[in-house]
Amino acid sequence: MTLSSTEIHRLADVARMVEGHIDGDPQLEVTGIDGLRRATPGQMSFVAEPQYIHQASESRASALVVPEDFERPAGCEQALIRVPDVAAALAAIAELFAPPSPPRHEGIHPAATVDPDAQLGPGVSVGPGAVIEAEAAVGEGATIGAGAFVGYRASVGAHSTLGPGVKICHQCVVGDRCLLHPGVVVGGDGFGFYFRSGVHHKIPQIGTVEIGDDVEIGSNTTIDRARFGATRIGAGTKIDNLVMIAHNVQIGEHCVITGQCGIAGSAILGNYVIMGAQSGVRGHVKIGDGSKIGGQSGVDNDLPPGSAVMGLPARPHRRAARCIMAVQKLPELRKRVRDLKRKVDTLADDDPKKEADR
Amino acid sequence: MTLSSTEIHRLADVARMVEGHIDGDPQLEVTGIDGLRRATPGQMSFVAEPQYIHQASESRASALVVPEDFERPAGCEQALIRVPDVAAALAAIAELFAPPSPPRHEGIHPAATVDPDAQLGPGVSVGPGAVIEAEAAVGEGATIGAGAFVGYRASVGAHSTLGPGVKICHQCVVGDRCLLHPGVVVGGDGFGFYFRSGVHHKIPQIGTVEIGDDVEIGSNTTIDRARFGATRIGAGTKIDNLVMIAHNVQIGEHCVITGQCGIAGSAILGNYVIMGAQSGVRGHVKIGDGSKIGGQSGVDNDLPPGSAVMGLPARPHRRAARCIMAVQKLPELRKRVRDLKRKVDTLADDDPKKEADR
Amino acid sequence: MTLSSTEIHRLADVARMVEGHIDGDPQLEVTGIDGLRRATPGQMSFVAEPQYIHQASESRASALVVPEDFERPAGCEQALIRVPDVAAALAAIAELFAPPSPPRHEGIHPAATVDPDAQLGPGVSVGPGAVIEAEAAVGEGATIGAGAFVGYRASVGAHSTLGPGVKICHQCVVGDRCLLHPGVVVGGDGFGFYFRSGVHHKIPQIGTVEIGDDVEIGSNTTIDRARFGATRIGAGTKIDNLVMIAHNVQIGEHCVITGQCGIAGSAILGNYVIMGAQSGVRGHVKIGDGSKIGGQSGVDNDLPPGSAVMGLPARPHRRAARCIMAVQKLPELRKRVRDLKRKVDTLADDDPKKEADR
Repeated sequence: MTLSSTEIHRLADVARMVEGHIDGDPQLEVTGIDGLRRATPGQMSFVAEPQYIHQASESRASALVVPEDFERPAGCEQALIRVPDVAAALAAIAELFAPPSPPRHEGIHPAATVDPDAQLGPGVSVGPGAVIEAEAAVGEGATIGAGAFVGYRASVGAHSTLGPGVKICHQCVVGDRCLLHPGVVVGGDGFGFYFRSGVHHKIPQIGTVEIGDDVEIGSNTTIDRARFGATRIGAGTKIDNLVMIAHNVQIGEHCVITGQCGIAGSAILGNYVIMGAQSGVRGHVKIGDGSKIGGQSGVDNDLPPGSAVMGLPARPHRRAARCIMAVQKLPELRKRVRDLKRKVDTLADDDPKKEADR
Repeated sequence: MTLSSTEIHRLADVARMVEGHIDGDPQLEVTGIDGLRRATPGQMSFVAEPQYIHQASESRASALVVPEDFERPAGCEQALIRVPDVAAALAAIAELFAPPSPPRHEGIHPAATVDPDAQLGPGVSVGPGAVIEAEAAVGEGATIGAGAFVGYRASVGAHSTLGPGVKICHQCVVGDRCLLHPGVVVGGDGFGFYFRSGVHHKIPQIGTVEIGDDVEIGSNTTIDRARFGATRIGAGTKIDNLVMIAHNVQIGEHCVITGQCGIAGSAILGNYVIMGAQSGVRGHVKIGDGSKIGGQSGVDNDLPPGSAVMGLPARPHRRAARCIMAVQKLPELRKRVRDLKRKVDTLADDDPKKEADR
Repeated sequence: MTLSSTEIHRLADVARMVEGHIDGDPQLEVTGIDGLRRATPGQMSFVAEPQYIHQASESRASALVVPEDFERPAGCEQALIRVPDVAAALAAIAELFAPPSPPRHEGIHPAATVDPDAQLGPGVSVGPGAVIEAEAAVGEGATIGAGAFVGYRASVGAHSTLGPGVKICHQCVVGDRCLLHPGVVVGGDGFGFYFRSGVHHKIPQIGTVEIGDDVEIGSNTTIDRARFGATRIGAGTKIDNLVMIAHNVQIGEHCVITGQCGIAGSAILGNYVIMGAQSGVRGHVKIGDGSKIGGQSGVDNDLPPGSAVMGLPARPHRRAARCIMAVQKLPELRKRVRDLKRKVDTLADDDPKKEADR
C-alpha cells in the first residue's frame, strides 16, 4: 500500500532545472528518486559522498545525479546528470517528485477557537481544533496546524508552520519561517524548586522562550520557559525530535541539535554548535562557536570554540578515542600486568639482595 | 482513591477458563490479581519465573497461578492453579478482573472534524476533537481517539486504535490491529539539511512512514518520514514510549524497542531484534536478525544475526562485561602497576649491570 | 520582540514584602529581576550561592538580593536587600515582576466536550477542545487546559492544572494541587508482552496510575499504567520533561526526577530520591530513601538509603569518580606498563639464572 508518485519527467528537463550536464539519453523518462540501494528501475538515484561510489554500479536506478568530476566505476552504466552541487540539486529534484502536498485551508477553520483579541496577519491558516488565545499574534501566511495551541500574548512569526498539536505557551515568541513539527512544546515551566522543611517549593518561572527566524524543531521536543528573562534559540538553528532544552538555555545561530539531546538549565551554546544524538550538556556550561559534540556524550565543562569532544564525560575527540580504545583492551592490559608481576616476582626471588630488602 | 475491581470469581471458574488444575479449595473466592509482593488477601498472584519462587511463601495472596511442575517451597500454603503456560493464563485472568473498559462511541463524534473526502470503514469510532483530512482512509472497526489527527492521504488499518492526540501525518500508513498510545507522532519530517554559505538548507523529506500490522507504539514516540521512499516498521514489532525513529530507518518484524531508544537515519534492523532501554543505533548501521542490544548502549557498527551486545560503544556481551568489570577495578590495577614499578626500580638498582644500562 | 514587564517598584516596598533589610537607597525604583550576568541597569539580581559572589561586582543590576551575612566584594556598589532566605525571597519577588498571567476562563468553554456523566467541582475551568469522558471527576478549582483529555473514570484533584494537550487516560488518578505541563501522558499501556510461536502477545495492562498531591510533571513526560494494581507517584514529587516511567513503578514522596530519565518496570524509589538528567533505573530495582543518582548514569542494582551513585553502571560516587578518572588516564597507564615490561625484559636478560627459567 505504498503511495508512489505518478510524476514522470524526461532527464533533459530534470537536468535543465538543476543546471546539470547529461551523460546518457536525455529522452529517458524517470518516475521518482530514492537511495542507491532502494531505487528501482525507472527511478533516479544519486552519489552525494565519495564512499558510496562503489554502490553506483549495483544500483538498479536508471539515472544518477553525480558531482561534475564523477568517474564511472566499472559496471556503472546508468545515465548521469553531472551537477556542481549534488545536495542542492537533490533538494530541487525532490520537490519535482514530491507527492501532492496537503491542501492548505486559508483562513480560520470553523472548528478552531480564535480569541477576538488575537491578531492574525493576512493569509494565515488555522486548522480544526486549534486554539489561539487573547492578545496572541500570528504573522502573515503562517500555518497553525490542527489542534495546535498559541497561548496568551504568544506570537508566531510570518510564514511559520506549527504542526498538529504544537503548543506555544503564553508570552513565548516564535520567529519567521520556522517549522515546528507535531507535538512540540514551547514554554512549559522550567524545572526549578527550592527545598525547605522537607518540601520542594516551586520557583516561579516568569520568563519566556524566544525562538529566532528559520528555526526547525522536531516532533515532541520540549523547550522550557526561563526563570527570568528568556530561553533563546538563535536564528537558523535546527533541532531534532524529543530534545529537551531547559530553562534559560541560550543557543546561538545555525546550531544542529540531534535527536534526544538534553541541554540543562542556563547552558550557553555559541553559533554553529553540533550535538550528536542522545548527548547532554550540563547546566551553566558554555560551549564555544563551532564545537562538535559526539553522540551519547556528556559535556560537563566549558568548551573553547571549535572543540570536538566525545565520551562520558566528553573529552577532546582524539584523546577520548584513545581512552575508549584502551578500555576495549583493558582485559589484555590486566593480563599483561599479571604476567609482568609473575616475572618480577621470579626476578626478585633470584635477587641476591632479596633478604636485605625485606 | 484506588479504583478496585468489584469482580468476584470462584477459583474453580478461573481454573476452568485457563485449563488449569487446582491444588486447594475450588470454592475459594478471589477478587483480583497482583504481583507476589503487592497482592492482598483475597487476591490471586502468580509465579512466572523460577527466581520468584521464594517470594511465594511470603505473599499474602490467597491463590497462585503456577507452572504445572511447581514445587511448593516451605511455608507456601496458598491454593494453586497449575497451568501449562503461566503468561498466557495471566493474560486471560487479567481480562477477567479488568475494570470496565471505556465505552466505545461508534461513529463520528459531533465534535470531530472529518473531511467529506475521507473514507471511513464500517464501525469506525472517531472521538471528539479528532481530525481526519481529505483522502485519508480509516479501516473497519478502527478507533481514532479524542484529538487524534489523520492527515491528508494517510491511512489507518482495520481494527487499529489511535490513542488521544496521536498524529499520523500526510500520506503515512498504519497497518491493521495496531495500537498507538497517546501523543505518538508518525510522519514528522526527517532531520536533513545541507550546509552552504553558512546556512543549513532543508532537504525536502518527500517520503512517508509505513507501519505493518499488529504494531504497538508507546506514548509520545516519534517516527519520522523518509527523505525518499519510506521509513518502515515491520509487522508485529512493539515499540515503547519516547522512542525516536529517524528517517529511512527500516525495522523488521517482531522487534522489541524499549523506552527512550533512538535509531538514527537509514539504520536497518532485521527481524526479532531487541533493544534495551535508552540505547541507540548509529545511522546506516545494519543489525542482523535476532540481535539483542543491551540497555544504555550504543551500536556503532553492523551486527551479524544473533548478536548480543552492550556498552558504549556496544561490543559482544561477554567481552563488554569483562571490560566493564575491568574498569570497575581500574584503581586497583593502577595501584598494582605503581607497586610493580617500585619493585622493578629496586631490582634495577640492584642490577650489577645497571651502570652500563644507563 | 521581548515582552518585558512594565512593573516598577521601590526598593523599600520590595524589602518590606520579603522582610529584608535595605543597604542602600530605599527610594530606588526597580523594574524587573534577572541573573547576575543578564540583569540590566534598573533591574534587580541576586546572590543565592557563595560561588557567585565574585560576579556581583560585575553585574549591571541596580540592586541585589543577598543573604543577611553577605560581605560586599570590592567593586560591589549596588543597593542590597539582605534577607534570611534568598530562594524564598526570590520566589516572592518573581511573582511581583511576573508578566500578567493568562486570564482564566471559569466554567466549560463552549468548544470543550464534557460528558454529562462527568463530575466537575465548583470553579473548574475547561479549555477549548478539552475532552472529559463519562464518570470522570475534576475537583474544585482545577484547570483543564485546551485540548487536554480526562478519560473514562479518571480523576483530577482540586486546584490541579493540566496544561494544553495533557492526557489522563481511563481510571487514572491525579491528586490535588498538581501541575502537569503540556503533552504529559498519564496511563498509556505498560509495555508488556509474552513471546509464543514467534509472536509477541500483549499482556493486558489492567492497572492504573495514581499520582499524589502537589506533584509537578514536565512537558511530554509519560507515565504508564500498571499491569495490575497501580503505578504510583508519591506526594510532592517533581518530575521534569520527557521522563519515562514504566508500569508498576513506585516512586515515593518529594523525589526529584530530572529531564529524560527513565525508570523501568516495577522499580521502587523511596522518598527524597534525586535522579540526575538522562539517567536510568533498571526494572525491579529498589532505591533507598534520599539516594542521589548522577546524571547519565544507569542503576542496575538495589541501593541502600542515602546512596550517592554515578556512572554506567552506577557505583558509589567516590569510587565511580576514581574509575572515571582512571579511564581518562588509561593511555598513560598503558604506556607505563609498556615501559615497565621493557625494563623487566632487560632485567630478565641480565638474570644469571635466566637460562634455567626458560
